[in-house]
Amino acid sequence: MHKTRVGIIGATGYVGVELVRGLSVHPNVELTCLVSRSFSGKAFSDIYPAYKGICDTILSDCSPSEMASLCDVVITALPHGVSSQVVPVLLDAGVKVIDHSGDFRYRNAATYEFSYGLSHPCPDLLAEAVYGIPELYREELTTARLTANPGCYPTCSILALAPLLRHGLIKTDGIIIDAISAISGAGRKADLPYSFCEACDSLKPYAVLNHRHTTEIEQECSLAAGKDIHVTFTPHLAPMKRGMLATIYADPIGECTSEELRALYQKEYSGDTFVRILPGGTLPDTANVIGSNYIDIAVEFDRRTGKIKLFSALDNLGKGAALQAIQALNVMQGYPEDIALRNLSRGI
Amino acid sequence: MHKTRVGIIGATGYVGVELVRGLSVHPNVELTCLVSRSFSGKAFSDIYPAYKGICDTILSDCSPSEMASLCDVVITALPHGVSSQVVPVLLDAGVKVIDHSGDFRYRNAATYEFSYGLSHPCPDLLAEAVYGIPELYREELTTARLTANPGCYPTCSILALAPLLRHGLIKTDGIIIDAISAISGAGRKADLPYSFCEACDSLKPYAVLNHRHTTEIEQECSLAAGKDIHVTFTPHLAPMKRGMLATIYADPIGECTSEELRALYQKEYSGDTFVRILPGGTLPDTANVIGSNYIDIAVEFDRRTGKIKLFSALDNLGKGAALQAIQALNVMQGYPEDIALRNLSRGI
Amino acid sequence: MHKTRVGIIGATGYVGVELVRGLSVHPNVELTCLVSRSFSGKAFSDIYPAYKGICDTILSDCSPSEMASLCDVVITALPHGVSSQVVPVLLDAGVKVIDHSGDFRYRNAATYEFSYGLSHPCPDLLAEAVYGIPELYREELTTARLTANPGCYPTCSILALAPLLRHGLIKTDGIIIDAISAISGAGRKADLPYSFCEACDSLKPYAVLNHRHTTEIEQECSLAAGKDIHVTFTPHLAPMKRGMLATIYADPIGECTSEELRALYQKEYSGDTFVRILPGGTLPDTANVIGSNYIDIAVEFDRRTGKIKLFSALDNLGKGAALQAIQALNVMQGYPEDIALRNLSRGI
Amino acid sequence: MHKTRVGIIGATGYVGVELVRGLSVHPNVELTCLVSRSFSGKAFSDIYPAYKGICDTILSDCSPSEMASLCDVVITALPHGVSSQVVPVLLDAGVKVIDHSGDFRYRNAATYEFSYGLSHPCPDLLAEAVYGIPELYREELTTARLTANPGCYPTCSILALAPLLRHGLIKTDGIIIDAISAISGAGRKADLPYSFCEACDSLKPYAVLNHRHTTEIEQECSLAAGKDIHVTFTPHLAPMKRGMLATIYADPIGECTSEELRALYQKEYSGDTFVRILPGGTLPDTANVIGSNYIDIAVEFDRRTGKIKLFSALDNLGKGAALQAIQALNVMQGYPEDIALRNLSRGI
Repeated sequence: MHKTRVGIIGATGYVGVELVRGLSVHPNVELTCLVSRSFSGKAFSDIYPAYKGICDTILSDCSPSEMASLCDVVITALPHGVSSQVVPVLLDAGVKVIDHSGDFRYRNAATYEFSYGLSHPCPDLLAEAVYGIPELYREELTTARLTANPGCYPTCSILALAPLLRHGLIKTDGIIIDAISAISGAGRKADLPYSFCEACDSLKPYAVLNHRHTTEIEQECSLAAGKDIHVTFTPHLAPMKRGMLATIYADPIGECTSEELRALYQKEYSGDTFVRILPGGTLPDTANVIGSNYIDIAVEFDRRTGKIKLFSALDNLGKGAALQAIQALNVMQGYPEDIALRNLSRGI
Repeated sequence: MHKTRVGIIGATGYVGVELVRGLSVHPNVELTCLVSRSFSGKAFSDIYPAYKGICDTILSDCSPSEMASLCDVVITALPHGVSSQVVPVLLDAGVKVIDHSGDFRYRNAATYEFSYGLSHPCPDLLAEAVYGIPELYREELTTARLTANPGCYPTCSILALAPLLRHGLIKTDGIIIDAISAISGAGRKADLPYSFCEACDSLKPYAVLNHRHTTEIEQECSLAAGKDIHVTFTPHLAPMKRGMLATIYADPIGECTSEELRALYQKEYSGDTFVRILPGGTLPDTANVIGSNYIDIAVEFDRRTGKIKLFSALDNLGKGAALQAIQALNVMQGYPEDIALRNLSRGI
Repeated sequence: MHKTRVGIIGATGYVGVELVRGLSVHPNVELTCLVSRSFSGKAFSDIYPAYKGICDTILSDCSPSEMASLCDVVITALPHGVSSQVVPVLLDAGVKVIDHSGDFRYRNAATYEFSYGLSHPCPDLLAEAVYGIPELYREELTTARLTANPGCYPTCSILALAPLLRHGLIKTDGIIIDAISAISGAGRKADLPYSFCEACDSLKPYAVLNHRHTTEIEQECSLAAGKDIHVTFTPHLAPMKRGMLATIYADPIGECTSEELRALYQKEYSGDTFVRILPGGTLPDTANVIGSNYIDIAVEFDRRTGKIKLFSALDNLGKGAALQAIQALNVMQGYPEDIALRNLSRGI
Repeated sequence: MHKTRVGIIGATGYVGVELVRGLSVHPNVELTCLVSRSFSGKAFSDIYPAYKGICDTILSDCSPSEMASLCDVVITALPHGVSSQVVPVLLDAGVKVIDHSGDFRYRNAATYEFSYGLSHPCPDLLAEAVYGIPELYREELTTARLTANPGCYPTCSILALAPLLRHGLIKTDGIIIDAISAISGAGRKADLPYSFCEACDSLKPYAVLNHRHTTEIEQECSLAAGKDIHVTFTPHLAPMKRGMLATIYADPIGECTSEELRALYQKEYSGDTFVRILPGGTLPDTANVIGSNYIDIAVEFDRRTGKIKLFSALDNLGKGAALQAIQALNVMQGYPEDIALRNLSRGI
């Protein structure tokens, strides 16, 4: 069978190496081109010596048009503002693109510009781009030319909230998302606050009034609810390499029980391999999702205070980034959605 | 000057060793008696070899009445249900007591019985016991015979919420406390979930509907507000040895700004050495409080959603337990409140 | 093609879960039977929730004879002294066995009895058992009925030392092996010294005069050298979940250079996928082998002192245990030696 | 009593903050001047927010001569090559100096120049400088004007080896020092290899042929032995914030037992508060020395192989740097050697 030829731009960041990890075991994918401006000419395994003998591909500085001749799909792991320069060229050259930046996640250019402080050079593409959560946009992904891979916090939040919003079971104001990320979410870089000695005892909130993912979460929650929603979102950083946890608070409309809510979630996600609704009495734990494409979700109704509590855990580089991109690629290319993705869990 | 003779019951748990750490440098305290049922006859430094040469005291199995002849103050670090057996004997023998369990923290025996599932053997002592947060009960502590040292989550939550509640600036329903503890909060024990390999990648919520500290938080919040309050409280566990962080959400009554709120907090805590109200643009970080008796608090008003966000960080064994007990002892004995406590910070 | 039906006894320990991780992606293996005495009746994924949806097999308490009807190969991850009771029954019932204990690693029952303080119930099997390092016993493994999977320290030490010993390039007395293991080497258990709070700041030597792996290392070094060898071995524990590092000192016979030594190692291991001889100027790092079946080795000659320094790193649960067992299984069953094993590396 | 006025140059590095931690509780010291070129004008507690309320001193860019008017003693925590520019000016201005760099640790300028690749601008000061291990040079320190505070690896190695060398109990060739440092040894900086995500699973050797501390260890070992010694030294890095462990191998001259060796060590260090010789059956553990000025040492004779094994643990920033500097200061100023240093241990 013809394999999908895949290229990666930004192959040496943490999303890049996770893409290589996942795609290396993909039976239908051939990794044809790894682009890294910083390390062009070196082997991928020079940068990540764990990959000696597994992926010794020489990193290139291919132009988008050169990539188009080598690839059916290009996955871009570039900073926002850079993606929007590169992606149109790739699309024009005839390749499909899965982009990891914030540049194509918004339906509305104004929201992008508010969130990222940049004017959008190709707002017309926003209408075409598919937001890459397969559990929400599976149909659209089957024909997508451009997929905007979601942020980690949005994936973790939206999959937890969508069923309640879609069914109108919670009030749309007053939703609170309290989330904690591992340090790899900051990317591969040498900043003092992310150095081992500064970070290893540090648990802290950050960007508590204006994190960019807020508007991305609000867009998708609004679409699920059919009305405009604002959410209160607070990100935190914990001393871990990988993993993300969200604890979400919402007010139910009408009566409910934990059991009913759980049944709803199980039904809503019954066709979704990578969403695991936990049974009563168990709660998500990052240890159970690290290295994988799974998201674990639990829902509880707190009788004492009348609040619904949602809990979701995923790997910020897995379902929160690179592995979800591979899931989207599987849908886009007509492959079984779980191919190459089921067995990446870490064990212990 | 006559030193205060202090004894510790439960000296080999994590609260015990932190008490020894703090009291070892206290110029007005003589540690006269370390009781440990499990390790009686051994030296304290056999259990904690870091203390060889610092505290080689032989652990004893003294009875309460024997302790009374050796001690002016006894600090008990015992499980709930056990403290309530031991403390009355100590008081009857004429010593002052600072207790770390939940047994004397409640004004109302019924709330204790609901929270801990035990009937209280000496409910009359509840009226006398002083809740040991000096910032709230300094006056009462000066004459206290029995101090109930608060839980770590309650200390972290109440000090953050009290100014707003006292001044009637927030709605009393809908308060949400989302808090994260380090693993030492579970105590010194050999449980599989707290083993290094199981815990080191694990970030998770627990006891999300019924943590015992909920009612303790509610009691003190209600007293501050002058009316009954229920709060939504969700504890989490992060892979760290020490530290605690709370992120709290509340709805303001009337208009407010971050600056006004910050000014209020600075004023409210202007006389409290160990409460540090952070300047605008900075947020609490467990790295800054580990090993110390400080609690760092920040307050922000989120204009977009109309929520007040409070952030507080402390060391669960420090201001959240043993060091706050020493602070209470200082007040009870008429010493400068900060004596022996200012310089315990860890550096890095 | 007929798949190999594999069963695991001791499936819920850390070696067990790593076997499940590796065998779950093995195209030629069907996992037919997971035995756990402690958790019989529960799903494997109840014990390791990361495996929900990946391996929900019900754990059984199958007898060895029942296993024989379900399995072509049984992998035992049992304590020493227990394996020697179970393995003979399995062999008699006609299945091949790969055993993880120390029970079948010795050629000489007396050495086993000295090392483990037990008399051996079936010393005749020692002659038949193949020591399961494929790089050393590939030929023997192709026809093995019983494979004794080596210890982690021995694998890490022997693969580093074998080329020098085999070629008579170092003195056989005075060899020093200084090695460091991650905590998972102690197994899945709730011992206080392995609890997060006790272990997370603890770097320490242990069993410095009599670790059992010493005699195992000596046996294989002696076979490589063609004469009896004693080595000085010192194990240490570091605050990590997985990984092992050995630093080895030996005295060369005659002159040598780092380059010549490196060339020798490259030649000796040129046919061995999972042994990576590092180029000059680079050294092993556990970060590069965790999660994989690779062992990274570097060799340097220290001109100043005339010592050869060897460095080797592996994953104590990977090449040091479960994944090496799968490598042996591949050889025993005539499969490509690297099948299912090349792409288990963790990325970051 | 007149307090010693102390200044620190390089106050915001990890050695600097540890000096501030220790000196803040010193009853005989007044910290008069904190110099930081990078952060001049900011408060010390802006850089280390843990010190808000404890040390809010404004960092200055004082010249050496200005410092001389403010300080009796200046402690320099500067890079090598910089110290040798600054220290002579300070001495000329009449202050005593304790220097943390390698610039004044060598008796012989040629060894310095070989080790650091720099020519020494003031080799005459080498004769005057006292090597700052009080257990070895207590007498000399009482009159020292310039103290060269030793490296962390040298302190850890020399204190372990000195008794055997001094008494001629081991062969002087063939000594092997295998040591492991925590990451803070690399200093406060933003290098990628020391970032949390790169370092947290990384255990590795480094600089295995030419670490600068080798010659420093050799100098002091040679002085103890009364003859020239070369040692084999291998440093490693472990994923911890603080701590250091050395495992040392030597060949005895004549017969010996572990008990005799232990008795010798106990006698040799009987007057040294901060050297703890561990009883038989116990071994050093970094967890027991972190945060303190203690070094824990154990000695064993391995009957099987005829090797002596020495084990020593200290805190690389404590006894390995800043706290040892305070110990030296105590001796230089005629204070009790342990003042301000006994109670810095961390508890857990």
